[in-house]
Amino acid sequence: MPGFLLPASLPGLRFAPGGVRYDSAMIATFTDFGLAGPYLGQVRAVLYQRAPGVPVVDVFADLPAFNVRASAYLLPAYSQYLPAGSICLCVVDPGVGGERGALAVEADGRWYVGPDNGLLSQVIRRTAGVSVFSISWRPDTLSSSFHGRDLFAPVCAMLANGERPPGEPVDAVKLARPDWPEDLHEVVYVDSYGNAVTGLRATQLTSTSRVEIAGRVCGYRRTFCEAPPETPFWYANANGLVEIAVSGASAHTALGIDVGQDFRLIHSP
Amino acid sequence: MPGFLLPASLPGLRFAPGGVRYDSAMIATFTDFGLAGPYLGQVRAVLYQRAPGVPVVDVFADLPAFNVRASAYLLPAYSQYLPAGSICLCVVDPGVGGERGALAVEADGRWYVGPDNGLLSQVIRRTAGVSVFSISWRPDTLSSSFHGRDLFAPVCAMLANGERPPGEPVDAVKLARPDWPEDLHEVVYVDSYGNAVTGLRATQLTSTSRVEIAGRVCGYRRTFCEAPPETPFWYANANGLVEIAVSGASAHTALGIDVGQDFRLIHSP
Amino acid sequence: MPGFLLPASLPGLRFAPGGVRYDSAMIATFTDFGLAGPYLGQVRAVLYQRAPGVPVVDVFADLPAFNVRASAYLLPAYSQYLPAGSICLCVVDPGVGGERGALAVEADGRWYVGPDNGLLSQVIRRTAGVSVFSISWRPDTLSSSFHGRDLFAPVCAMLANGERPPGEPVDAVKLARPDWPEDLHEVVYVDSYGNAVTGLRATQLTSTSRVEIAGRVCGYRRTFCEAPPETPFWYANANGLVEIAVSGASAHTALGIDVGQDFRLIHSP
Repeated sequence: MPGFLLPASLPGLRFAPGGVRYDSAMIATFTDFGLAGPYLGQVRAVLYQRAPGVPVVDVFADLPAFNVRASAYLLPAYSQYLPAGSICLCVVDPGVGGERGALAVEADGRWYVGPDNGLLSQVIRRTAGVSVFSISWRPDTLSSSFHGRDLFAPVCAMLANGERPPGEPVDAVKLARPDWPEDLHEVVYVDSYGNAVTGLRATQLTSTSRVEIAGRVCGYRRTFCEAPPETPFWYANANGLVEIAVSGASAHTALGIDVGQDFRLIHSP
Repeated sequence: MPGFLLPASLPGLRFAPGGVRYDSAMIATFTDFGLAGPYLGQVRAVLYQRAPGVPVVDVFADLPAFNVRASAYLLPAYSQYLPAGSICLCVVDPGVGGERGALAVEADGRWYVGPDNGLLSQVIRRTAGVSVFSISWRPDTLSSSFHGRDLFAPVCAMLANGERPPGEPVDAVKLARPDWPEDLHEVVYVDSYGNAVTGLRATQLTSTSRVEIAGRVCGYRRTFCEAPPETPFWYANANGLVEIAVSGASAHTALGIDVGQDFRLIHSP
Repeated sequence: MPGFLLPASLPGLRFAPGGVRYDSAMIATFTDFGLAGPYLGQVRAVLYQRAPGVPVVDVFADLPAFNVRASAYLLPAYSQYLPAGSICLCVVDPGVGGERGALAVEADGRWYVGPDNGLLSQVIRRTAGVSVFSISWRPDTLSSSFHGRDLFAPVCAMLANGERPPGEPVDAVKLARPDWPEDLHEVVYVDSYGNAVTGLRATQLTSTSRVEIAGRVCGYRRTFCEAPPETPFWYANANGLVEIAVSGASAHTALGIDVGQDFRLIHSP
């Protein structure tokens, strides 16, 4: 995927010259729109119209609604396996229609486009050599409630078409949320099986670490197969985050835990 | 998108000569199939097989089930931003397997394909110079319960391939439902945030109009950001319909309103 | 769709020589991942990256969770209308991370890829001249919980690219589950309308057959239109399975039936 690695006129920036399309581009959506309703479909229609032939993948359509902080810790984990050249459309945007700005961030060969509300903060923080642009472009017609369709999707299409981000470079240091922790010791997502994904990277723990959550102590298991029934455990999920699960049951209901539930680490010798 | 604007042999009709494919064609689905289950997937498989390379976008998969009238008012609002040349597959079809006919409608450069049960009535009513065809073609094998897959999807694929609609022109005037109002003063959809979309176009109101619904009076706000918490308001949604919302809460639960709830307009001086 | 019908070096096998891509290939997913969450999206991203240009269709995203047996009877019914050359990615995999193997099955011109846990057993049993391969290939990085993304999706992409299945042929007879019946006289899926799909092929019944389920006797109706309101009936659904429904209502709630509910056939003279 050499597209985004071509020499560019601005030092430290890596984007393709205007007008070049890379066959391997892919647009991945990360939103809290939910699966129901007409929102994702309208975004896709804009993308297909403006960047024909570029595949669109809905990676996360049910990020925790209006929860920018939890979503900010999901984003790097669930985008890290996307191929270089991927363009991530990121929308958790409770302030839509207000004064918040818009960003395009180039990190590890991928683009991230979304509101300047902290959603991209952990991607920026964790990437060396990140490039951040403040998007100044606005469409002729901009609804007050659906910038995903009217603003962010067209910007993603521009990038997929090899155009430069329509705005000016800004200093990344100012944009990361320094008040948010490196890892978030909270549940950030509950999946359809009732497993509780946390904002903590599994690389921060060892197999002797334990997680105390909702009054229960969870030891480490490599897989569901190794866990005895009904016993809560933690494991490194397929995207590198600590996940709390109960074999054959829902951790969500068995432990009564949901997004926002915090926990404590017990590091054993 | 000149495809559908080429001169055609019948005056007033605009379709492409047989065999021509337009790169910019897009098929958009509007159905009450719901997201779960195998229905949309089977429709997509037919479309990909018969119109390879044409993108398919599910704009509305959860139109109110079996509710033809409410869906008829959503259809023009949520298809108006699709590019010219789009082909809308429209299925809310409680009478499937019975005697109702099938239609293809060309309106404002888009095609609409669906059952002749009133679903396309508001698209027809609101478009000058609309062309309506009664679809007489039937597949070799037609299930009694899934015309979306067996009948309407193949017709959409034909149109996407630049073929003529497989049927005869009919008089549009007879097909619109004259007993249905120009705008529907009812809730026609509740989205995943609990916002209540109505069948009333916002262009019919002014910023001093108020909506009385379920015993509450809602004033106008431009955006969610401008609305005080917990207070119901109306705004012009991103598709031009009047929408009832409560900032930071669900109008659906806060007001106890659902699809079918009617309301009254209060026009202030 | 001649691709998979080319002569191949092994008698009885039908795959395309390495390196050849067939334009008409399509990848269809059958999973219990559910629609919510980041699972299907990550699978799609792998497929688009490794088999660019091949359309991906999610036919069934909500197969009954962890229920391999019920899913095994849905799979042949809901894949039979896919075009020849389709590649079905099949994942209901409660034993992921354990010792179970992986299979690629060629049946009736389609490929099926999934765990060796009985999920593909009814496809194998019902197809004459089936070819079965044990997949020995493993990716460099294999998560313990998400073989759909890491193992099965890459194998599907290989097949879509015209490559041979990365493993060795094995004897099909050993793999079918002889302890599972030819047809399953149980509800195997409840759709979003509340209709109850069974594991029984409608070709096994006649129009005078009746189904006794949850204390109610259901006669045959050709369509919903022919059924009196509130009365449960059975019909041959659009995929050839016996389905229990109630016109204008949900059979799921009206009869209190769900996946796993068994029933009895009454064959009248």
